[in-house]
Amino acid sequence: MLASWNDGAAKSAIVDFVARVTKEGGRDFVPPAERIATFDNDGTLWCEQPVQVQVFFLIDRVKQLAAKDPSLKERQPFKALLERDYKLLHSHGKQGVMELVAATHAGMSEEEFEKIATDWFASAKHPKLDRLFTQCTYKPQIELLGYLRENGFRTWIVSGGGIDLMRAFTEEVYGIPREQVIGSSVKLRFEMKDGRPVLMKLGELNTFDDREVKPQNIGLHIGRRPILAFGNSDGDLAMLRYAKGHPGTRLALLLHHDDAEREFAYDREFKLSPLAEALDKANDYGISVVSMKRDWKAVFD
Amino acid sequence: MLASWNDGAAKSAIVDFVARVTKEGGRDFVPPAERIATFDNDGTLWCEQPVQVQVFFLIDRVKQLAAKDPSLKERQPFKALLERDYKLLHSHGKQGVMELVAATHAGMSEEEFEKIATDWFASAKHPKLDRLFTQCTYKPQIELLGYLRENGFRTWIVSGGGIDLMRAFTEEVYGIPREQVIGSSVKLRFEMKDGRPVLMKLGELNTFDDREVKPQNIGLHIGRRPILAFGNSDGDLAMLRYAKGHPGTRLALLLHHDDAEREFAYDREFKLSPLAEALDKANDYGISVVSMKRDWKAVFD
Repeated sequence: MLASWNDGAAKSAIVDFVARVTKEGGRDFVPPAERIATFDNDGTLWCEQPVQVQVFFLIDRVKQLAAKDPSLKERQPFKALLERDYKLLHSHGKQGVMELVAATHAGMSEEEFEKIATDWFASAKHPKLDRLFTQCTYKPQIELLGYLRENGFRTWIVSGGGIDLMRAFTEEVYGIPREQVIGSSVKLRFEMKDGRPVLMKLGELNTFDDREVKPQNIGLHIGRRPILAFGNSDGDLAMLRYAKGHPGTRLALLLHHDDAEREFAYDREFKLSPLAEALDKANDYGISVVSMKRDWKAVFD
Repeated sequence: MLASWNDGAAKSAIVDFVARVTKEGGRDFVPPAERIATFDNDGTLWCEQPVQVQVFFLIDRVKQLAAKDPSLKERQPFKALLERDYKLLHSHGKQGVMELVAATHAGMSEEEFEKIATDWFASAKHPKLDRLFTQCTYKPQIELLGYLRENGFRTWIVSGGGIDLMRAFTEEVYGIPREQVIGSSVKLRFEMKDGRPVLMKLGELNTFDDREVKPQNIGLHIGRRPILAFGNSDGDLAMLRYAKGHPGTRLALLLHHDDAEREFAYDREFKLSPLAEALDKANDYGISVVSMKRDWKAVFD
């Protein structure tokens, strides 16, 4: 049970919390139906350095598209992405990101995208860790997900990542079914294609699942306040506070990447997803900080 | 098993379908994770005559509000609703409905609304059937939901009704947890209220879950094509066709209200939710029609 977690405050907080909420007749008992645990994905369940897996996927998709249409290589924001000029990419803002998403995720059915994503995950490797992206998941977190489910929890992902990209691997890798994945998404349109009803992915943003949008989407998809939430950046703070904002015993956890040797060490300087306020205010908000270096016996499998 | 269903084509179609998709090694086998069944609610799982339960709820909410602010009684669309002038109400269109929703559902937290809805269901009765609305559910459908779950299905509601109003009773009445309810919704805003993080319901429509929006919301919430879908109106047709639009063995069912004696008899003339195209094209689209009169041994418990 939680074999890759070192004994210490973080592990104790988890084990103690689970014991309390599952003890029938106890003061802190929570019925199974309400045992909802929500996890961020990038940087919480798997590695998000040097950039999120979503960005590697975007790069490879744009490369495929540029092979057919070489003019893309000279057009922004595609050029910045292919040259991995993330600073320039940032300067294109949300509009630039949407152009990338529209070009790489849209104009195809959900099922066509699913095939592209599944094929990509079957061979795409992390450039520094030299392993499949699906093997860049954190071993202690996989154990934690299983431990929670054994105790009657339902485990959800609530991530800024693309919902369909995540659904292509979460069931196999995390044991989290597609319907328990909440993420950023484009709008869908029901239409007949070659005589068959399909859902087409449009080049229009439906939701960017970050910061206060996370609890809002939890309200839409789950309709219950989670009793446990786990994140690693300021983008997760609203979700962590939402979970803690219940009079009962609740647990909010924040992973701190402080392990340059086994993974990466970063927090407030990581522009794509900084950790600053959540770390500074963890005590005030009742959030338990998990140190990768101190609390994890192993990082990867 | 399905004791309130008469032997006949509809019951056979259901039992045969379930046997096929659950037979390991069989040609039509579907793994449990993919056994998704989606049900419309109004007119499919419970009575929607003379108007949907949602409308009775709106009337009672407006009455409560008018007790505090009598001027509402003279203002449209509130006046039309209180006088049950549905024709006039219709003429106010979507804008009118949104004014009603904004006045009755918005400006409060999800949890405050939940309490209002739960209290209402505890005592509100159907005017003609003289029983609690939560007892206006169809017995054969409750049996069907249970039968599907016993066979490894997950049962979902995909309804035009308000998502939060449904979530106040679906778990207890249908055995369907809150997170497996998809419906119409207003936008939510995460904010601090009296020092506590809450989700506030806004007077702005998020989604009107009807017609082609049903499969679109299935794509967002579930991320899988259902293998069984059950509806009773043209508002469900896109969902039924979406379920059937898979090369494997799939089942789409359409309840026809043809039982004036035990419930109501209506189809194309019911303005709030007509059944015409789906009935006319059922054969072409491979949809099995369920006759309330012929196929159900009992209607209510």
